[in-house]
Amino acid sequence: MNKTDIQPVAIGVDLGGTNLRIGIVDQRGNILKSLKRQSQAKEGKENVINRITDLLIEACNISNELQREVKGICVGAPGFLNIKKGIISASPNLPDWKDVALKKEIEKRKNFPPILLQNDANCFTFGEWWIGAGNGYKNLAGITLGTGVGGGVILDNRIWLGDDGTAGEIGHIIVEPSGLKCECGRNGCLESYASGTAIVKQATLALKKGEMSTLKNRVKENLNAVTAKMVSEEATKGDRLSLDIMKEAGRYLGIAIASIINLLNIGRFVIGGRVAGSGDIILEPAREEVLKRAINPHIKDQVIVQASLGDDAGIIGAAGMVFQNG
Amino acid sequence: MNKTDIQPVAIGVDLGGTNLRIGIVDQRGNILKSLKRQSQAKEGKENVINRITDLLIEACNISNELQREVKGICVGAPGFLNIKKGIISASPNLPDWKDVALKKEIEKRKNFPPILLQNDANCFTFGEWWIGAGNGYKNLAGITLGTGVGGGVILDNRIWLGDDGTAGEIGHIIVEPSGLKCECGRNGCLESYASGTAIVKQATLALKKGEMSTLKNRVKENLNAVTAKMVSEEATKGDRLSLDIMKEAGRYLGIAIASIINLLNIGRFVIGGRVAGSGDIILEPAREEVLKRAINPHIKDQVIVQASLGDDAGIIGAAGMVFQNG
Repeated sequence: MNKTDIQPVAIGVDLGGTNLRIGIVDQRGNILKSLKRQSQAKEGKENVINRITDLLIEACNISNELQREVKGICVGAPGFLNIKKGIISASPNLPDWKDVALKKEIEKRKNFPPILLQNDANCFTFGEWWIGAGNGYKNLAGITLGTGVGGGVILDNRIWLGDDGTAGEIGHIIVEPSGLKCECGRNGCLESYASGTAIVKQATLALKKGEMSTLKNRVKENLNAVTAKMVSEEATKGDRLSLDIMKEAGRYLGIAIASIINLLNIGRFVIGGRVAGSGDIILEPAREEVLKRAINPHIKDQVIVQASLGDDAGIIGAAGMVFQNG
Repeated sequence: MNKTDIQPVAIGVDLGGTNLRIGIVDQRGNILKSLKRQSQAKEGKENVINRITDLLIEACNISNELQREVKGICVGAPGFLNIKKGIISASPNLPDWKDVALKKEIEKRKNFPPILLQNDANCFTFGEWWIGAGNGYKNLAGITLGTGVGGGVILDNRIWLGDDGTAGEIGHIIVEPSGLKCECGRNGCLESYASGTAIVKQATLALKKGEMSTLKNRVKENLNAVTAKMVSEEATKGDRLSLDIMKEAGRYLGIAIASIINLLNIGRFVIGGRVAGSGDIILEPAREEVLKRAINPHIKDQVIVQASLGDDAGIIGAAGMVFQNG
């Protein structure tokens, strides 16, 4: 086989606090093979970096067997990163990671194809833009509603990085300046209203105040056992308290989106993450808010849509950025 | 003289509700000649368009006398525009202008070099980026605090226009979702806190409630005669009420800027317009708010600065965009 006949692949890595996913992805965004392990973040960063390295070796071997050339590797990671230097500065989901030179650490362990580091929400956004719910839009934003709220912005078909590569922190757009305390320590960030953590907080607080809700049947006496998934599920079944909490989260999501529209005039927002799984229950209040608050006269119906790639968006997007940057 | 020896100029137009300014600008941003007339907006749009045309003819003649070739014309106009089509859709400062095809109307009257239409706040921002307080920054935002609050965003050394050319409406970033009614009809936009109109409203309301202030000495019994300039001046002299009002405006300005930083990771904000003339009285509270609310770890001292080109920013920026687009 000629070298020129070899179709390249890229390896996308999705490094989360719980799971570590790796995908071998071709130039059209197809995952040829995916691997999944636990991150074991609690056992320390050395352990996690070793696990990433082992999985990368495995992925490179598989690519080899598939007779594909690995063009590059991109690791999507949560938290604040220095992407130019490949450093994870701090990460809420990786508690002992402080200024970890992940790129160098992996390269130290083994000689790999070129490695990029990217914010995980940027990878999600890029994946959805490339072959997901944002396909065909040259400007869009991606928002992940999970433990926290992540974001990414695509402008003119590229992830917008900003001066230092830290752009896209949609979770920290201020939606209520004197509002709830955010995990980041500031007040009234979108994340303090629309993250899974925020939804659980609201629900638990209401239950402790004695509010009526079918959530009580789910957790019995243990009010601290409420999860965002439960709130979403009970909302779907019509539980008033759960519906109100999801609606409030959606309303604040819409306020942040309206501000972004007024600032950037972009017409597509792809919402992913666990909490977005509740679909229109959270997205419809967001849409209503956007219609009320966005000044652009050309607001279209399909401005806010659910992500379509599920858990694969991160690895697909990471790999896609290897191809775009290569 | 050879054609190749001719140094080109561009004509920048700043169309306001009160004044109409035109400048002949060279490639370095020097104004070779400027002209100023009243817009006479109250006498109807036909009259205004004729006045613009006459001034453009005069400017072209002067350019000719200066032996300069006019590369193009850019009209900076307030309000919501369709810049692709050269249409002013609606404008708060030009009351009877509704879907006015300004570019075509001027072209109908006389054969001119190519004409662009641009938002006036975008022209301001471009001017300040080109040779003003934003020079040297490839990413920045410009904010004008005048009757309303305008804005423009420069990304990668170009004005960011968005899907439809309506990007940059920083005045309608939501800073207090259940807050004051904005002139746009929505609630809690930055404009409803930081515009000259908002400052006057707050001051008048407080005086009517009987609050103590040296503003009373300025307007005597006629409480409706308060201007934003008076509030700014009395604040400078230490008047408590005026200081509080300017501080509140600055605080909300800072909240909007922090949201922009968190979203776009840009490190320079140039503030212009009449209200910004009060300098640190409004900018310092904005800076304090940004330090509290921006998550970027690299926030530098000179993030928020006063504009430096005064009333010329608009015509310089308009002309600059002719050169950049040509």
